[in-house]
Amino acid sequence: MKQLESGVTAAKGFRAAGVQAGVKPGRNRLDVGLIASDVPCTAAGLFTRNLVKASPVLLDMETVSDGRAQAIIANSGIANACAPNGMLHAQEMQKLAADALGISQDLVLVGSTGVIGMELFTECIRDHMQELVGQLTDDPAGSDLCARAIMTTDTVKKEFAFEEKIGGKMVRLGGISKGSGMIHPNMGTMLAYLTTDCAISSDLLKKALKQVCDRSFNRISVDGDTSTNDTLIILANGMAGNPCICEENEDYDAFVSMLETLCVCLARRMARDGEGARHLITCTVRHAENEAEAEQLAKSVISSSLTKAAIFGCDANWGRVLCAMGYSGVSFDPQKVDIRFVSKAGSIDVCRNGAGLPFDEELAKKILEEEEVIIEADMKMKDAEVTCWGCDLTYDYVKINGDYRT
Amino acid sequence: MKQLESGVTAAKGFRAAGVQAGVKPGRNRLDVGLIASDVPCTAAGLFTRNLVKASPVLLDMETVSDGRAQAIIANSGIANACAPNGMLHAQEMQKLAADALGISQDLVLVGSTGVIGMELFTECIRDHMQELVGQLTDDPAGSDLCARAIMTTDTVKKEFAFEEKIGGKMVRLGGISKGSGMIHPNMGTMLAYLTTDCAISSDLLKKALKQVCDRSFNRISVDGDTSTNDTLIILANGMAGNPCICEENEDYDAFVSMLETLCVCLARRMARDGEGARHLITCTVRHAENEAEAEQLAKSVISSSLTKAAIFGCDANWGRVLCAMGYSGVSFDPQKVDIRFVSKAGSIDVCRNGAGLPFDEELAKKILEEEEVIIEADMKMKDAEVTCWGCDLTYDYVKINGDYRT
Repeated sequence: MKQLESGVTAAKGFRAAGVQAGVKPGRNRLDVGLIASDVPCTAAGLFTRNLVKASPVLLDMETVSDGRAQAIIANSGIANACAPNGMLHAQEMQKLAADALGISQDLVLVGSTGVIGMELFTECIRDHMQELVGQLTDDPAGSDLCARAIMTTDTVKKEFAFEEKIGGKMVRLGGISKGSGMIHPNMGTMLAYLTTDCAISSDLLKKALKQVCDRSFNRISVDGDTSTNDTLIILANGMAGNPCICEENEDYDAFVSMLETLCVCLARRMARDGEGARHLITCTVRHAENEAEAEQLAKSVISSSLTKAAIFGCDANWGRVLCAMGYSGVSFDPQKVDIRFVSKAGSIDVCRNGAGLPFDEELAKKILEEEEVIIEADMKMKDAEVTCWGCDLTYDYVKINGDYRT
Repeated sequence: MKQLESGVTAAKGFRAAGVQAGVKPGRNRLDVGLIASDVPCTAAGLFTRNLVKASPVLLDMETVSDGRAQAIIANSGIANACAPNGMLHAQEMQKLAADALGISQDLVLVGSTGVIGMELFTECIRDHMQELVGQLTDDPAGSDLCARAIMTTDTVKKEFAFEEKIGGKMVRLGGISKGSGMIHPNMGTMLAYLTTDCAISSDLLKKALKQVCDRSFNRISVDGDTSTNDTLIILANGMAGNPCICEENEDYDAFVSMLETLCVCLARRMARDGEGARHLITCTVRHAENEAEAEQLAKSVISSSLTKAAIFGCDANWGRVLCAMGYSGVSFDPQKVDIRFVSKAGSIDVCRNGAGLPFDEELAKKILEEEEVIIEADMKMKDAEVTCWGCDLTYDYVKINGDYRT
């Protein structure tokens, strides 16, 4: 598998663009993105499990239910959730893109992210529709613009692409995502759009997406708040020319493996770019009873406000790690647990069999000062191992969210 | 019911004290407290449901299982959780108090709160045992010293007392508690000790405590982290001389009512004094399907980092409130929900039937600047109503917890 310098335009037959339409206040802020395939695609989507769903989420769930789509239009600035005339405006966006692309409206998916509760007037999008379609390009620059157009409080764009030979043909897969706060996905997260030229059946595409989402986006958390707008969509246009993947053979495995690599890259980048974050916190739980419990333990650790604040302060406060596992709901013997902190600067054992070890505080501090801090917990039960990703809790998280609407 | 200016020494036959033994580093910091009844008491306790339990919690669970106790010794500074020789040190504290008071060791309960993972050496407690017992007094000053001796990051002591005629006699009930961070009780919370001179059977005392705890301490959250040390204990010595409450008659109801008033006062004070907090956030959910769901909805709101940060910023970001209810796991129709912010400065409707209302931002800010902010949500389903309490998420929470151990 080879990594490429691109995103949603890496795969054959996909073009993308982003413009500043004026949904977001302020200058020089891209706010509407478009992704289009030259031909109709097999499509699959996963959406927030929050009971309060944004209008574009409800519209996409309906639109993608037949497993087909060809384009995605998305805006940032206003989430079009709990907002007046939400469904009308979402459908209007869908129609604007369909008309400008000359395709059927039911092949267009719609995404929105930003403030909840405000009305999304689509006039400015209509006024910029021709410009947006005119800029569509299969160059990496198109993916770059689109990735930036869906950012809100994100500080870096999230964009990755890979290629791999499948069924004798070179297949490409790329994606962009946004997400920085209100990140505790229970499905996809905020907005993540993936494109591939792989030929694959609708059922298997859906299955692969669900499987991989559970191991990537569903294993990160920034603040425990599951958004109203979480959306993960994949479009597969088959233009790589590989024999269509219609059963769970080795081609399917190769595709899933590439998909997982991509989604983990995007998910890690989102956790690292969590609002105000200075550290990516990676928690690996080893030798748990089973995968579900390993995940529950690791998620409890990366979601603990106290653990997150300790990592911000570069404080090797492992008691909070054990405490967070203790209230996770998983049954285990605390007197068996080992805990270790690891980073580029080294590794340090801080707890053995549930009790503290004397350790070098200076070395611990050095380890925790690195950008990525890995917390390893060994449960000494069975063989299951899971990794989850989060970020530290900082002054800037509070600052950003104390006054987000203004 | 009348409120008294005291705490655990309000009830007849209870004395308390607090000294600086040196468990906590630094000067002028009380760190060991003692509560003793003149006669053995009926006792009940509730403890953390965190799987990782501190040694004193494990010891108390055993000690209180026969429904009898006479004294409580507690220290702050070191939690004696996940610590070397934890049970030995907890038992040593128990023995020191029992010997100094001249009572049986199995009548002494033990509490600890502070840093997890550090060894609690009891030499300094032994050295101050005579001083501690010598200072025992039934004056309010004894309760005051004891309440302060169990504080960690608390900025104010938590102490309340009430009296009420029950069975023709004046019965008094008082309590102290501590708790500021790692507060998301799933039982009692951190340390809360209640004393009463009411005569009541062991079974009914236990039942009343559970019932009231579920409606008070279990309805607050500071940071979603359920502690390893949560402990709620009540001692009832019967010295008020009321006819012993042995069935659920009107005397029982009067006692439960007084107990609920006390526990809600302590719980609210703990939420308000949450680490770094500037606001007490009170969330009342009305017209929910049933009490359990109303509680789940209200707890989801007061636990949401985004809602907490918005209140810190005095930002009427009601979308986060609706979003938090949406991921609570409770089923409801978002398009029926009304949301309103209320405080001493007035009230403002911000969401009707799930959609935003235009509102006066200046008035909203004024309302949110008050110390207690009430969020009211009307689900328009059935009759259940529940109130939960939390606090805002501030720079100071991050600061306090970024470097707690040093």
